[in-house]
Amino acid sequence: MPLMNDYLSVYADYRSRIDEMLLNSITRKLPATLYEPLNYALNSGGKRIRPMMVIFSCETAGGSFGSSANAAVALEMLHNFTLVHDDIMDNADTRRGEPTVYKKWDSNVAILAGDQLIGLAYVYLLKTEIPNISEMTRAFTEGIIEVCEGQSYDKEFEARKDVSISEYMLMISKKTAKMLETSAAVGALIGGADKDFIAVVKEFALNIGLAFQIQDDLLDIVADEADFGKKIGGDIVEGKKTYLLLKAYENTQGSAGHKLLEKIINNNGLKNAGTKEIEEVREVYEESGAVSCARQEIEKFTDQAMQCLEKLPDNTGRQRLKWLAEMLMNRKI
Amino acid sequence: MPLMNDYLSVYADYRSRIDEMLLNSITRKLPATLYEPLNYALNSGGKRIRPMMVIFSCETAGGSFGSSANAAVALEMLHNFTLVHDDIMDNADTRRGEPTVYKKWDSNVAILAGDQLIGLAYVYLLKTEIPNISEMTRAFTEGIIEVCEGQSYDKEFEARKDVSISEYMLMISKKTAKMLETSAAVGALIGGADKDFIAVVKEFALNIGLAFQIQDDLLDIVADEADFGKKIGGDIVEGKKTYLLLKAYENTQGSAGHKLLEKIINNNGLKNAGTKEIEEVREVYEESGAVSCARQEIEKFTDQAMQCLEKLPDNTGRQRLKWLAEMLMNRKI
Repeated sequence: MPLMNDYLSVYADYRSRIDEMLLNSITRKLPATLYEPLNYALNSGGKRIRPMMVIFSCETAGGSFGSSANAAVALEMLHNFTLVHDDIMDNADTRRGEPTVYKKWDSNVAILAGDQLIGLAYVYLLKTEIPNISEMTRAFTEGIIEVCEGQSYDKEFEARKDVSISEYMLMISKKTAKMLETSAAVGALIGGADKDFIAVVKEFALNIGLAFQIQDDLLDIVADEADFGKKIGGDIVEGKKTYLLLKAYENTQGSAGHKLLEKIINNNGLKNAGTKEIEEVREVYEESGAVSCARQEIEKFTDQAMQCLEKLPDNTGRQRLKWLAEMLMNRKI
Repeated sequence: MPLMNDYLSVYADYRSRIDEMLLNSITRKLPATLYEPLNYALNSGGKRIRPMMVIFSCETAGGSFGSSANAAVALEMLHNFTLVHDDIMDNADTRRGEPTVYKKWDSNVAILAGDQLIGLAYVYLLKTEIPNISEMTRAFTEGIIEVCEGQSYDKEFEARKDVSISEYMLMISKKTAKMLETSAAVGALIGGADKDFIAVVKEFALNIGLAFQIQDDLLDIVADEADFGKKIGGDIVEGKKTYLLLKAYENTQGSAGHKLLEKIINNNGLKNAGTKEIEEVREVYEESGAVSCARQEIEKFTDQAMQCLEKLPDNTGRQRLKWLAEMLMNRKI
């Protein structure tokens, strides 16, 4: 057994138990075009952040790993549903270094695998033993509703040239942060938390989600490629409307840098951009103050998240939530 | 108010109330690329068979329209999720004479609209006031799981040349009948039915679903085009592995007719087939005995459905279920 304060060991232990449950979750073999891609999607790694958010939030509220494990699995399935469907929409070839379901099979298979993941997620969620199953299931369903809204906004933004920072914030609050919020809410409900606790732990997760996404945008240009696990400048090549692109575009009105960013926006990316072009964009991001704005926002949301934690009961669960937040922001996993 | 025995009036009344609820179900406007197609999909007509199955089953079990209306809306949403996603996979241009969501917008929009319909369906289901919400939600979720399996089998069969009648029956039991079964089970649970009642009403719905699908296959070649609302022989043109194609193929081994059917199977349909070619296939279907086998199967499953009804309490709800089954089999709506 891990020591109580050895957070990484606790995480590794919980993660392997959740991985094991995911591995055993697909009991049927046929139809093979449904269950093979499902097995593939659920067992291709991932940090299992949402399960940890469920479990640690539950522990903070007074519950246990055992009482929240099924819901933790449900949240990971729901997360994977979004990945499998988003990869079709984004025409993404690889994920975590492996071919996406959509590429390995085809888009029809990926549509059905994603749909089935929603169904399976509810199967697992409903295994949870809790008096008020209705409230928990409603919180879970709200996650689906909002994540679909977030992805719709993201796709709409691809076709638009006038996306504002506040629209971007709304989009990431739904697309990225909401699933963490839902995880925290579901965990807290299982742990028997009251309304106030739930509101606070959701705010914690929302803030971490926002900080995490802006950091993800920032890492696209400042990270070490080996650490980041993705090619530097990928967002620029694809013309993704990141915090940095939008903020720099806003800040550079009338300057030469603005023209370069306009080119990215008008052409939906800098296709075939090499190191030199990426470096030019990075300089505009730096000089326009967009990078320092991003750093400030990350710090602000991280601080707000930590302040939320202070309002929760001071126990092992809360320490684990804090560790999870710090780990996410340092990206050491 | 309609007279108690004026079934068509009751149906028309319930249908308009469900249509009204569906019309008012989309309260948000943004993102427009999500909610416009959702409104479009939910308000483009349809017979609302699944809502009626929910409500009449609930009434038979002792419940009311009022107690089951939200779940009825949920089942219609879930049905529409399957239509929106299936239309992408089948590359279908029109549905009920109008462009499909996938054609009117694009496949990304249709993927997200379908996903969101699952979420919305749960929102409505969870509005239901019932002591055992968990059992109802589990029954509902089973519908998603099986309908995805059914659609996966259907897509697998497109690529296969050796599909058996028993495989076909398994596929339609999941793809077509399961959603009716789920509707009946959910309605019965809301009405407070016991296990025996639920098993019987599910068997009723399963049998009606099987009879309905085989009849749908048969109507493709024997219907009056105006009544049927679809082009005669469409399944032959597309090479759909219907009951008739599979049964006739099985029955004609070694004959000239077999060669024609083999051509349909090997070429995935008779593209550009005119009235003459369709008529030739129809003759093979007739002469091989496939048409009379289909008629026997339809009668068998309809009879079995009616026998199930006899085991349920003799009340107005049961009469309405009987009327619904007869109406479906006579296709007068």
